[in-house]
Amino acid sequence: MKVDGKPTRTIELDADGWGVSVIDQTRLPERYERVVLRDVEDAARAIRTMIVRGAPLIGVTAAYGIALAMRADATDASLARAFDKLVATRPTAVNLRWAATRARDALRDVPPSMRAERAYDLASAMAEEDVDACRRIGEAGARLLREVWERGGTREPLRVLTHCNAGWLATVDWGTALAPLYRLHDDGVPLHVWVDETRPRNQGYLTAWELEKHGVPCTVIADNAGGLLMRRGEVDACIVGSDRTVRNGDVCNKIGTYLKALAAHDCGVPFYVALPSSTLDLATASGDDIPIEERAASEFGDRLPGRVHNPAFDVTPARLVTALVTERGVVHPREESLARAFPELALQ
Amino acid sequence: MKVDGKPTRTIELDADGWGVSVIDQTRLPERYERVVLRDVEDAARAIRTMIVRGAPLIGVTAAYGIALAMRADATDASLARAFDKLVATRPTAVNLRWAATRARDALRDVPPSMRAERAYDLASAMAEEDVDACRRIGEAGARLLREVWERGGTREPLRVLTHCNAGWLATVDWGTALAPLYRLHDDGVPLHVWVDETRPRNQGYLTAWELEKHGVPCTVIADNAGGLLMRRGEVDACIVGSDRTVRNGDVCNKIGTYLKALAAHDCGVPFYVALPSSTLDLATASGDDIPIEERAASEFGDRLPGRVHNPAFDVTPARLVTALVTERGVVHPREESLARAFPELALQ
Repeated sequence: MKVDGKPTRTIELDADGWGVSVIDQTRLPERYERVVLRDVEDAARAIRTMIVRGAPLIGVTAAYGIALAMRADATDASLARAFDKLVATRPTAVNLRWAATRARDALRDVPPSMRAERAYDLASAMAEEDVDACRRIGEAGARLLREVWERGGTREPLRVLTHCNAGWLATVDWGTALAPLYRLHDDGVPLHVWVDETRPRNQGYLTAWELEKHGVPCTVIADNAGGLLMRRGEVDACIVGSDRTVRNGDVCNKIGTYLKALAAHDCGVPFYVALPSSTLDLATASGDDIPIEERAASEFGDRLPGRVHNPAFDVTPARLVTALVTERGVVHPREESLARAFPELALQ
Repeated sequence: MKVDGKPTRTIELDADGWGVSVIDQTRLPERYERVVLRDVEDAARAIRTMIVRGAPLIGVTAAYGIALAMRADATDASLARAFDKLVATRPTAVNLRWAATRARDALRDVPPSMRAERAYDLASAMAEEDVDACRRIGEAGARLLREVWERGGTREPLRVLTHCNAGWLATVDWGTALAPLYRLHDDGVPLHVWVDETRPRNQGYLTAWELEKHGVPCTVIADNAGGLLMRRGEVDACIVGSDRTVRNGDVCNKIGTYLKALAAHDCGVPFYVALPSSTLDLATASGDDIPIEERAASEFGDRLPGRVHNPAFDVTPARLVTALVTERGVVHPREESLARAFPELALQ
């Protein structure tokens, strides 16, 4: 998507041909700055401290992290260390492990002398796959949302609520939840996006930043406000991303998603979840089995009010999800539908 | 309740016998400071800028505001101006208007020379009534919550979630939602309180401050987190206050209350609303008829992320409320029950 008119990606090779340039998302929305990751430790730190964040982007960053490790030391021991270091950074997003495992397994039978090049090729391919998946998610989601807009009569802008940041900043480009909105906007459908602030880290400010940079009208609201807006009929649809979606269709996403899904259900507002298949975990039966990352109290900011509990994700039961939007189209959030759409991921 | 061991009220006469001393709640939790209101303009500003906040406390502050106006100028015109100025400060809390109307009507037939004294007496009586109502709410709510704790086996602390600040800071003393918790704590029941941060103004920091000052264990959580905690079985009951409760039992309270009530309903957690009858508005039929105050974007803080929409309250439908806790005991949130418990407020 565009930053100041210029098409931009969240992660790409630096001009030197081997460093990995990423947007420092801890500086946004105040400052747009890129930093270059030069070893696997940089990559792990970038994921852990959320310089890069968003399930798809941390997967691609992990793949580049393996490449950086192989450039420095292409032994089996180095590969194992890099893998362990990267997957330990964040426990909830399943595609971090998926991407790191894919890179490790692809390199195992490759002679050390060829591993670095192969790892860079793989990371680059995974980045392109992510862009392609997000573009397809955008097309499928745009069809769904256009139907909602047309049912409403098309006289007013389509009003969509989103939580956290599942935009292009959370992926390589396009985003997941925001990809359909960029598609619709580029196709000329008038939009207005309600952006949840998303405490405690305020990822909503990233969402507002990227929507505004691309020219999509939006308004930030407190996480508390979405229920009122839905009761008043001021939201036509909700769309969010997912850090992990499991076999029964339960969706793990940023803390607070469940509350918005409850309100959408109570108010008859469709609740869509956009996800690339890299975030599917069909080996896990139910959302209750997903480990929930606990993050530092310092995320609440300087006015730290005594003791804090800070779980980063929650689980939205499949019954509250209207549809999953994937790179293979719209999928009903049920085991049979997921297995049909993604047979290669289903348990045998 | 206690601050550093000393029993304290939110509002009282200053040592000079006529200024009105209040806690500056915009300084909390960083600093505990009192300010003295010396004219009706001070009182209106204190309400508008939330130096004082909480439905019961702003009612009593309005009554003292009328007294300050009468001290300066006891004419009919001054009384009418003071009334108009005070009720214009905040539109949602019904007991601001209730208290100002009560003071104005009580003074109408009083000779101007006696109005100031009468107005001070009335404000002082309203403060005592509020303390008494909150104490009774505490007793009724403590009985309810003790039953929840005993059903759970009493081996673990009772875990209660609250939203916003409906503690003694929001009243003259005791609080509404927190009164039952102070009662239980003082009676030796072990407690742990989950305190919603309550964006955008972070009134949860006030709640954590006052609970800690009184020695009640508590933990602040993001507004987004309560749903997860309830799904995990980590909340035994929710209790909140109310800015206005109407004839059909719908509850208007701080923005975000509705989302917590939805989660409690979905997870089988009892959801209690504690309120003095001064916040009852049985002349209004349904929560949908309540005007919702829109507050300034600046409440989001310094990192203002572009355009902001900031409604301060939402409406929780009566069907999601387990029980209302009032100074006359527990009341079912239905028109018939409210009319039976408060016949003098019911429409004829």
